[in-house]
Amino acid sequence: NETNETKPEVSPDLEKATETVNAKTPNVIKQHADLNEKPIPLEMERDGSDVYVKMTAQISDIEIDEGNVYKAWTFNGQAPGPLVVVNEGDTIHFTLENHDPAIPHSMDFHAVHTAPSKNFTDVAPNEEGTFSYQASNPGVFMYHCGTDPVLSHIANGMHGVIIVKPADGYPTDQEVDKEYVVIQNEWYKYNDLDDMTNGVPSHVVFSTKALHQGQPNTNGTVGAVIHSPLEAKEGDKVRIYVNNVGPNEVSSFHVIGTMFDDVYIDGNPANHYKGMQTIMLPASGGAVVEFTLKEAGDYKFVTHQFNHATKGAAGLIKVTK
Amino acid sequence: NETNETKPEVSPDLEKATETVNAKTPNVIKQHADLNEKPIPLEMERDGSDVYVKMTAQISDIEIDEGNVYKAWTFNGQAPGPLVVVNEGDTIHFTLENHDPAIPHSMDFHAVHTAPSKNFTDVAPNEEGTFSYQASNPGVFMYHCGTDPVLSHIANGMHGVIIVKPADGYPTDQEVDKEYVVIQNEWYKYNDLDDMTNGVPSHVVFSTKALHQGQPNTNGTVGAVIHSPLEAKEGDKVRIYVNNVGPNEVSSFHVIGTMFDDVYIDGNPANHYKGMQTIMLPASGGAVVEFTLKEAGDYKFVTHQFNHATKGAAGLIKVTK
Amino acid sequence: NETNETKPEVSPDLEKATETVNAKTPNVIKQHADLNEKPIPLEMERDGSDVYVKMTAQISDIEIDEGNVYKAWTFNGQAPGPLVVVNEGDTIHFTLENHDPAIPHSMDFHAVHTAPSKNFTDVAPNEEGTFSYQASNPGVFMYHCGTDPVLSHIANGMHGVIIVKPADGYPTDQEVDKEYVVIQNEWYKYNDLDDMTNGVPSHVVFSTKALHQGQPNTNGTVGAVIHSPLEAKEGDKVRIYVNNVGPNEVSSFHVIGTMFDDVYIDGNPANHYKGMQTIMLPASGGAVVEFTLKEAGDYKFVTHQFNHATKGAAGLIKVTK
Ligand SMILES: [Cu+2]
Ligand SMILES: [Cu+2]
Ligand SMILES: [Cu+2]
Ligand SMILES: [Cu+2]
Ligand SMILES: [Cu+2]
Ligand SMILES: [Cu+2]
Ligand code: NA
Ligand code: NA
Ligand code: NA
Ligand code: NA
Ligand code: NA
Ligand code: NA
Ligand SMILES: [Zn+2]
Ligand SMILES: [Zn+2]
Ligand SMILES: [Zn+2]
Ligand SMILES: [Zn+2]
Ligand SMILES: [Zn+2]
Ligand SMILES: [Zn+2]
Ligand SMILES: [Zn+2]
Ligand SMILES: [Zn+2]
Ligand SMILES: [Zn+2]
Repeated sequence: NETNETKPEVSPDLEKATETVNAKTPNVIKQHADLNEKPIPLEMERDGSDVYVKMTAQISDIEIDEGNVYKAWTFNGQAPGPLVVVNEGDTIHFTLENHDPAIPHSMDFHAVHTAPSKNFTDVAPNEEGTFSYQASNPGVFMYHCGTDPVLSHIANGMHGVIIVKPADGYPTDQEVDKEYVVIQNEWYKYNDLDDMTNGVPSHVVFSTKALHQGQPNTNGTVGAVIHSPLEAKEGDKVRIYVNNVGPNEVSSFHVIGTMFDDVYIDGNPANHYKGMQTIMLPASGGAVVEFTLKEAGDYKFVTHQFNHATKGAAGLIKVTK
Repeated sequence: NETNETKPEVSPDLEKATETVNAKTPNVIKQHADLNEKPIPLEMERDGSDVYVKMTAQISDIEIDEGNVYKAWTFNGQAPGPLVVVNEGDTIHFTLENHDPAIPHSMDFHAVHTAPSKNFTDVAPNEEGTFSYQASNPGVFMYHCGTDPVLSHIANGMHGVIIVKPADGYPTDQEVDKEYVVIQNEWYKYNDLDDMTNGVPSHVVFSTKALHQGQPNTNGTVGAVIHSPLEAKEGDKVRIYVNNVGPNEVSSFHVIGTMFDDVYIDGNPANHYKGMQTIMLPASGGAVVEFTLKEAGDYKFVTHQFNHATKGAAGLIKVTK
Repeated sequence: NETNETKPEVSPDLEKATETVNAKTPNVIKQHADLNEKPIPLEMERDGSDVYVKMTAQISDIEIDEGNVYKAWTFNGQAPGPLVVVNEGDTIHFTLENHDPAIPHSMDFHAVHTAPSKNFTDVAPNEEGTFSYQASNPGVFMYHCGTDPVLSHIANGMHGVIIVKPADGYPTDQEVDKEYVVIQNEWYKYNDLDDMTNGVPSHVVFSTKALHQGQPNTNGTVGAVIHSPLEAKEGDKVRIYVNNVGPNEVSSFHVIGTMFDDVYIDGNPANHYKGMQTIMLPASGGAVVEFTLKEAGDYKFVTHQFNHATKGAAGLIKVTK
């Protein structure tokens, strides 16, 4: 098992977190304490409209704020997990390799139609499971671990985004110059289900995942999409595929200095809004938002629930001449 | 007065709640303490487009979680109250019999156009009041007691759903195989207005109300719609009339393993969305959601605000071959 | 500097607030403590499609509840700030006079397209700054101070609404008899960024701003739009331009006794809903809502998140024969 590596230097944040966790879930943390598996790339192959996707469940350190490391439960060592992009109508053949020695994990893609009791089922520690289903509808969907208690698995880092590209595209495809992916998620006290259930988030963050070659790919770290900003040219129409993976809070997504000319709620071309200042994303809700950046300069985006922006949910678009 | 029955065995939960309440609102609780009126069926008669509806305000024990009984303020001994279904354009002649010996109650139907100062007024203890108004618009509407302090009356259990069926139906009526009603509500510490105003819910729950003969009809009890699941056949298109009666929280309603092919926001056929993973329901917001269950198996539904799902907001659809 | 007036009688509420603030941000409060600049009218002039708007940033006492005075950071001595109304396509030439002797302030209009790093920049104490940008899209937009920490500036009172009237109007313009502006905002402990970030609001309030001669114009005070109600005649179709300026909470806007026949999300004529009981407003989200008041009487409006209505978010429409 590749996860039995040497014990990492424990940060003061993690030390405190570990104490809390030890008191509550000693068995889990005992086996996780020495783990920090390095990220393993997503595997994806296509054969016609059959897509073969392989992901891992693994315990990996994620920096959630400068100097603050969270021993996350992850897909592929990222939190949020790796971006998955398929086409409307594809059949996904999905394999989950569970590298976690302690607890089962699973996969719930919001993009598919299938019986959860058959295809979103648990994969035991050190086992793998394969499941098949169709991505019948276009959109910007959340995926997450669905193992009980689900809130622990999502809040500890097991969430991400799958984009299903519409067969007929979006009516505004020809107008778009750049496109990016942005995800909002919250962090709570480490593996503290009571805090996750009754508390307020310690951090609310944005990450971006590379949709095209050369784009930044970050974790849900405070400042990640400021240190690695999105980029555009003056006059560009930019599209963002956005999803709020929660686990608990809704999002009021807003880009400062512009407005959304076109919005497709949950990323479905049929759900077309115009001229929005801010979009309401439910927990697990997605959207395609498109906006024009008329002048060079720095444009931040936030959730306009400013308590959450204050806790980290801000990113940057750098626009040059 | 039929409410003066023998004192019920008080559960430990209720005992604690009663202590809290005695300290704060001794007059109310003194008269409620011995009450547990058994549910009284809704009365409803139709004469052309005139509909005569009679409901009670009554104090009744509601199990909000296994072994946890809440001495609720209710309509007809249910919480949420009984389902009311009328047709677009009907005139409702509504009578409220207030069986509560201690405080006034009232009725605010979101489905109607009327002056609240005339037709949503208080009915005194042991009195009855009759009010008339038209259900002019189709949809899935909340109703609730509107007596001051409104938050106490809603949070103590006086909420429910009235469906106004559209005169011209929904464009997808022919595709629907089964239809159900689901309601989300929260519970707080018993009659503790401070907790209701500043705290987080103790429980967030789903209930279902029988829309057709033989369907389950439950209160807002943790696990109610898991123990009494909704049922469908493989391949069925299922419609749910859903409303989030609050009193405080918004809902991110989601069915695991499928997505909403058609959504009518607030149940109005004009507000038609397609292909949604999750819908955002404001407090008191409703929707008609339709989705296909392609494979036999168990499908849970939740609010994807997973702190609330963790507190009970999960239900089940059992799909058989 | 016109702000050096005689020290006002300090209310007990403010005294307590001042102690808290002194402990945390002594420099700011030291210079604010003696300030209570009286409201200065907004200046606005039009030359074709060029609109010249001048506003102040100033420290002014705002009554947030009866007898509870908050030493607010304001635009023009109002909180929310003065209503701004322009036409789609106008160029706004905006000047901010910063009368605050202690800290910089700035202006972020959600209605415009511009580089924030160039045109939403800080204006130093006792300085003024001028910025130009186009109001390219119709709608009901939030404006606010965008100076760091933004949450402090918004929560202390620096928010308001700018309406951009659509060039081609709304499809329902001919049906509307009366139109008003309503704004929802929250208050927290005075200048307490920790409470603003992690707490719950002390008050949630509605204000109205005069859109037409003779209409009431209020601050965000508990009961303001009950003491100074909106008015209509029996049978009127009323339009409300509504925005939820937050800073943190979403709103479930609802008028009791009627429903919204027509809703334009964010005030864009293209985003047309029908027959809604309640609309979901994200933080900073707006809408145009239109409804008919069929009978004379009193109609209250609320956010149906009733914890917030309980904290003050209720207003009144008086309907006469
Ligand atoms: Cu997991
Ligand atoms: Cu999910
Ligand atoms: Cu009541
Ligand atoms: Cu209501
Ligand atoms: Cu400011
Ligand atoms: Cu803003
Ligand atoms: Na929040
Ligand atoms: Na903006
Ligand atoms: Na919540
Ligand atoms: Na699903
Ligand atoms: Na809230
Ligand atoms: Na209403
Ligand atoms: Zn931090
Ligand atoms: Zn898991
Ligand atoms: Zn279009
Ligand atoms: Zn319980
Ligand atoms: Zn009542
Ligand atoms: Zn349709
Ligand atoms: Zn107060
Ligand atoms: Zn400011
Ligand atoms: Zn229209």
